[in-house]
Amino acid sequence: MNQHLEAIHRTAELFEKYSHAVRVLQYDLETICPKEGMEEQGETIAFFGNEAYKLMKTEEFMAEVEAAYQEMDESWDSFDRALVRELYQSQLKNSKITPEMNLEFSRITQKAFTAWSRAKEAADFSLFAEPLAKVTDMERTIASLRSEVPQLKQETPYDYRLDDYEEGMTVADLDRIFGECKERLIPLLQKIQASPKKIRTDFMSREVTEEQQKKLAYKVLHFMNYDLNRGAMTTSEHPFTSEMARNDVRITTHYYNDAFASSLYSVIHEGGHGLFELNAPQENWEHHLNNKTMGQHESVSRFYENIIGRSEAFTNVLYDMVAECMPQVVEGVSKKEFYEALNTVTPSLIRTESDEFTYTFHVIIRYEIEKEIMNNGLDVAEIPALWEKKYKEYLGVTPSNDREGCLQDMHWTDGYGYFPTYALGNMYNAMYYNRMKEEVDIEAAIQSGSLAAVNAWMQEHVWKKADRQTPKEWIMEITGRELTPKDFLDYIEAKYTKIYEL
Amino acid sequence: MNQHLEAIHRTAELFEKYSHAVRVLQYDLETICPKEGMEEQGETIAFFGNEAYKLMKTEEFMAEVEAAYQEMDESWDSFDRALVRELYQSQLKNSKITPEMNLEFSRITQKAFTAWSRAKEAADFSLFAEPLAKVTDMERTIASLRSEVPQLKQETPYDYRLDDYEEGMTVADLDRIFGECKERLIPLLQKIQASPKKIRTDFMSREVTEEQQKKLAYKVLHFMNYDLNRGAMTTSEHPFTSEMARNDVRITTHYYNDAFASSLYSVIHEGGHGLFELNAPQENWEHHLNNKTMGQHESVSRFYENIIGRSEAFTNVLYDMVAECMPQVVEGVSKKEFYEALNTVTPSLIRTESDEFTYTFHVIIRYEIEKEIMNNGLDVAEIPALWEKKYKEYLGVTPSNDREGCLQDMHWTDGYGYFPTYALGNMYNAMYYNRMKEEVDIEAAIQSGSLAAVNAWMQEHVWKKADRQTPKEWIMEITGRELTPKDFLDYIEAKYTKIYEL
Repeated sequence: MNQHLEAIHRTAELFEKYSHAVRVLQYDLETICPKEGMEEQGETIAFFGNEAYKLMKTEEFMAEVEAAYQEMDESWDSFDRALVRELYQSQLKNSKITPEMNLEFSRITQKAFTAWSRAKEAADFSLFAEPLAKVTDMERTIASLRSEVPQLKQETPYDYRLDDYEEGMTVADLDRIFGECKERLIPLLQKIQASPKKIRTDFMSREVTEEQQKKLAYKVLHFMNYDLNRGAMTTSEHPFTSEMARNDVRITTHYYNDAFASSLYSVIHEGGHGLFELNAPQENWEHHLNNKTMGQHESVSRFYENIIGRSEAFTNVLYDMVAECMPQVVEGVSKKEFYEALNTVTPSLIRTESDEFTYTFHVIIRYEIEKEIMNNGLDVAEIPALWEKKYKEYLGVTPSNDREGCLQDMHWTDGYGYFPTYALGNMYNAMYYNRMKEEVDIEAAIQSGSLAAVNAWMQEHVWKKADRQTPKEWIMEITGRELTPKDFLDYIEAKYTKIYEL
Repeated sequence: MNQHLEAIHRTAELFEKYSHAVRVLQYDLETICPKEGMEEQGETIAFFGNEAYKLMKTEEFMAEVEAAYQEMDESWDSFDRALVRELYQSQLKNSKITPEMNLEFSRITQKAFTAWSRAKEAADFSLFAEPLAKVTDMERTIASLRSEVPQLKQETPYDYRLDDYEEGMTVADLDRIFGECKERLIPLLQKIQASPKKIRTDFMSREVTEEQQKKLAYKVLHFMNYDLNRGAMTTSEHPFTSEMARNDVRITTHYYNDAFASSLYSVIHEGGHGLFELNAPQENWEHHLNNKTMGQHESVSRFYENIIGRSEAFTNVLYDMVAECMPQVVEGVSKKEFYEALNTVTPSLIRTESDEFTYTFHVIIRYEIEKEIMNNGLDVAEIPALWEKKYKEYLGVTPSNDREGCLQDMHWTDGYGYFPTYALGNMYNAMYYNRMKEEVDIEAAIQSGSLAAVNAWMQEHVWKKADRQTPKEWIMEITGRELTPKDFLDYIEAKYTKIYEL
């Protein structure tokens, strides 16, 4: 092995130990840590995150990465090339950020997380405004520091952070993509709302116990072939997936006793993230490579959640599971009614509870607010008002408090740039869904009693190279085309035209 | 502040960060970590435990501790004196143990834990024998290394580990104490078994749901004044308490649907441990002092579990809570029957499920086996047979497999010496119970609707100085007497003579 690479692997292994600890601590913080303990645990997380960061910032290590980057060629293992490329990129991005600054940034995000938890509980944005203002200053500082590095030069400050979550993605791209979405989705939403079709949804809020929901959740994970010897499911305020280690990828959910579909679909969504990690090539771990973008990740989770999870073949399977685990929910309900209820279009306040159709508007609203903050100097104190205005404009709804408004998501505690990846995920997955259909009889696969055949295609085409390719290379190799919202918009139009008999 | 002390505080603060991470990782390992992820997480825990150990093993730090130990006098803060004494003791104990050896030891115990989990699940001791043999070699090595340090010299190898869990405790002490116990408890057990008194217990195995048990558990914690803003309750195979940080002390429990009392009393027991930590002086944290012995800790947990928890005043309160949370359990059952059922004497196989009376035999059996291993070279492969022989001899019962035999407890994954502290806890708490009764009307306190008055006395007399005193100083200050099993044996005799009308 190349001597620089050897040195890099040694440090990467150590880095992985610190990251493992930080991930467990963070997972614990978001799932179990008591309220009064969060601040100290946040400090501990920031400390270890920064110890890890320091490993990457030694002169010695940076020189090894630089040398490896210069020396590497096609004869190198593809995993090693991806690792060196990733490390070199991150070295460039962090070149102006000292460990002291990095520690300060971690503290800012940790404090923001604690403040957000409390603010959300109190439904009071004012408790979050100051910590979020600090996050915002941090985001602007990061953008400004990056702009000093010639190789990283972007058009606008927001672009620096978009690129962190989805390599190569820019405001210009997203303005175009979301522009196309609005152009087709707004008139379609009007048609749906004008449709005389009535979908029955009364049974969706029938009371269920936590035990019933848990039983259903495990049944669904089993159907998805989620290996619980290498994973776990627990609860948290905001569902998420955490890849702790090679053989430990966990998901969380949240149970509501009057909305069985909420936990059910968050389990399918997070289960999708989990499958992606659990089925990544084992070589990734051996090469210390974990380089999926959020857009790639969300494409998978939302593929399982929506394209598979809300298809009629799948809701028919779910219907039988629900009938077994919580019979009261489907008593007197037909399979058709069940399918339609899970696909009803209802402009609403909460992103994670929203339907597949209106979801995109929730993302666009957040994108437009983030852009205002990052590129046009919007003061965070203005967020609640702007939030209200945009929800009114796009969806015609108004939050009655901040908990169901701008405090609903935890993402901003970490800064800006994540949300667009949810929508990009929908674009990617609609594109590869069209490819998958050519090769897999998805309906038959679902009826066969597990998602094994779907997972196998995903593994071969979507999961295998994700860590080694940029998103642009990746979607091109899977579909032979560049990213476009067209497939997604066509899919949405076809699906809802049929359901609403337009 | 003394300059050596300043240096010590700085390192102690850093040490505390590592310990915090290790505690969270260990807690996670025992509560949520999936089976296939345990080995890697064990490695990560061993790594960080050893990074912490290294902080204590630098020449510089050791010199500071040595200097502070020589310089300190009565003018120093009592917390600082306790800290320096603790650090100096642990420095002596570790003087022959290099970080490399320490890392190796951590790996051995982590592997033993993983193997034990699997062996217990499979009810097969042979899966645990080899890892336990390694733990045993480690224990013998540690004893031998300690014996090279003149200030630590003990009579027998087992004494070195006993001293780790209960400072100053020796085989000679325990042989005497357990000798007295056997002398009085064996004939008493025979009398109880010969008694014509019949206690009704049929309702103890009535079916309950996890949700009912959880509701009851929170009610009990509330009654105990356990602050859940500074703590949490989750589940694990083996209930335990984990003090993560100043404002984060968690307990775990395990629910069985045919044995409501199992989780109920483990919650009271672990709740006791938790109260001790949560109500320790805040100065302990400011001085990086956490120096309670296991005997002190078990005295508190078993005080709440048994002396309070199984008293008639308390079971009357529990009866009402059970009637509210799981009415089917007490349907047609009187308060008297409920009290007696919770105090029935039944020689049985599982220590944690055993009654207050036979519990001591479970400890004595483990003590005698540990002594055979540590002092007489017993091969761990002989444990199952010796276990069976002793259970037959003392309690007249025989396990049908290793899960209900020698695999039931996880303690041996960490080595030997913990178990005696459970029995010592009973001796201490019976002694301070006699003092408390002189000052607190305990029955009235319980009837008043919370344990506030009991906790207040505990805080003032039992909790406040525990970290700053040796167990001998501590029990002397609380009771004016040296440790004796007499109070415990008198208490047991009086209680069961009445219940069994002897």
